[in-house]
Amino acid sequence: MKVGYLGPRGTFTDLAVKSAFPDYEGIAYTTIPECMEAVQKEEVEIAVVPFENALEGSVHLTIDFLFHEETVPIKAELIVPIQQHLMVHPSQQGNWREVEKILSHPQAIAQSHKFLYRDFRGVTIEQMTSTAAAAKYISEHPELKIAAIANKIAAEKYKLSIVRENIHDYAFNHTRFIVLSRHDEEQLSIQLTGTENVKTTVMVTIPTDRAGGLHQVLSAFAWRQINLSKIESRPLKTGLGNYFFMIDINESMDNVLVKNAIEEIESLGCIVKLIGSYRTYEVEKI
Amino acid sequence: MKVGYLGPRGTFTDLAVKSAFPDYEGIAYTTIPECMEAVQKEEVEIAVVPFENALEGSVHLTIDFLFHEETVPIKAELIVPIQQHLMVHPSQQGNWREVEKILSHPQAIAQSHKFLYRDFRGVTIEQMTSTAAAAKYISEHPELKIAAIANKIAAEKYKLSIVRENIHDYAFNHTRFIVLSRHDEEQLSIQLTGTENVKTTVMVTIPTDRAGGLHQVLSAFAWRQINLSKIESRPLKTGLGNYFFMIDINESMDNVLVKNAIEEIESLGCIVKLIGSYRTYEVEKI
Repeated sequence: MKVGYLGPRGTFTDLAVKSAFPDYEGIAYTTIPECMEAVQKEEVEIAVVPFENALEGSVHLTIDFLFHEETVPIKAELIVPIQQHLMVHPSQQGNWREVEKILSHPQAIAQSHKFLYRDFRGVTIEQMTSTAAAAKYISEHPELKIAAIANKIAAEKYKLSIVRENIHDYAFNHTRFIVLSRHDEEQLSIQLTGTENVKTTVMVTIPTDRAGGLHQVLSAFAWRQINLSKIESRPLKTGLGNYFFMIDINESMDNVLVKNAIEEIESLGCIVKLIGSYRTYEVEKI
Repeated sequence: MKVGYLGPRGTFTDLAVKSAFPDYEGIAYTTIPECMEAVQKEEVEIAVVPFENALEGSVHLTIDFLFHEETVPIKAELIVPIQQHLMVHPSQQGNWREVEKILSHPQAIAQSHKFLYRDFRGVTIEQMTSTAAAAKYISEHPELKIAAIANKIAAEKYKLSIVRENIHDYAFNHTRFIVLSRHDEEQLSIQLTGTENVKTTVMVTIPTDRAGGLHQVLSAFAWRQINLSKIESRPLKTGLGNYFFMIDINESMDNVLVKNAIEEIESLGCIVKLIGSYRTYEVEKI
């Protein structure tokens, strides 16, 4: 099978794909919408895109595409620990403490803020379009005293030397990736151990004139003791103050209580879009 | 009084400040946190920062700073219509249809997507750090066949010629800016007409072990028929799945029903941070 992912090679999405689908052909896409379109148009059988980061929050491009466009369902989620490392060209390995510039993606820079402040105060920090692009640039400029912040996969791909491991400020940082596919979960044969629990993601649009509308939606779940793990509002793009809600339900769609709750929410005039019922797979720290 | 705002000059925040506080001295800050810190440290009496856009959603830097840092309260909100124009150097005014490159902020580019696709397909689009920075670059390169997407204030400041007005795709697009200050609203003497209604913004942290916690919080408002205009979840930055909620209440904090609702929510073990009770001011289209 072919797996489309948010590229370039060496990003955390690539790491998620290599962990879950080591034997499939990976195809890198430049943007999240392109990657999600690719699986919709059957250019690939699976698409993997970022969904939420523990520090930065949800990836709006992904949520908005799932809501506004026709998409294939989520079949699994992959939880990947975000580990950032400092790396240099092997020819600079001896004097890495004297680097004059550090390159990376703005999020990776933000995630390593304390380390940079403590060990590299005053050194120029340059923003790149991805951590992988930073690593690539280092590999092409062996003569420069520069370093990149990126992950282990990028270091391997671009043959760089990791000179300081785990420079990210928060050890608990993780990113959720979603696996979109028309195939059943079993057919995907994910090479990781999944949880027992199944989660269901829905997008709910509440009639705009309804006061207390979200409360009513949550009531349908609350009295049935159905647990929700996430609620997020996003603009409908029809004007300030109009939102839809993405809700993660800690139950399978097969649960009759979930089915009935959603049926009743719909009969109250809400529009419910089912995005998928799926299990969680965790990628181990490397 | 001094008004700190998210710079540089010529941005939509500058436009908001010029409309609301035409007689005060504006001081541009490079980042949202710096601007919010400036009013906290009394470098300025007022700070104006973006809070939410009708298409892009909330500005997370602003919400996270309000939640995590000690801040001065919101005293007003300013609703600004987002109007994007295509502008060139006056020396290029005659042949603006032949521009080879269009520069702007990624959001302004996204907001003018249909126009660019229809009228400038194939022309290089270059991302800049702000719409004002794009306008400034144009003003410094009269010999180049380039154009910027920016607002009217930027065109005036950098003496550019607007060659196509209102090129943004959605006419309803607005941005909410918040006015932070230790002074009372009356002392700020905002030069716009405010609404009658007062809105209250709070940030609520729900105990993590509480199933249906958000439902309980919303119940406290719902049975009192208190209308909420916005609910947004943001990561607590303590691990995947932990959130706080920002809630906009369509009532003043002086309303005894709001006071009691918040008191009860706190007695249920939630932490409530009051961000401000304030009125809405609208900037007219120009």
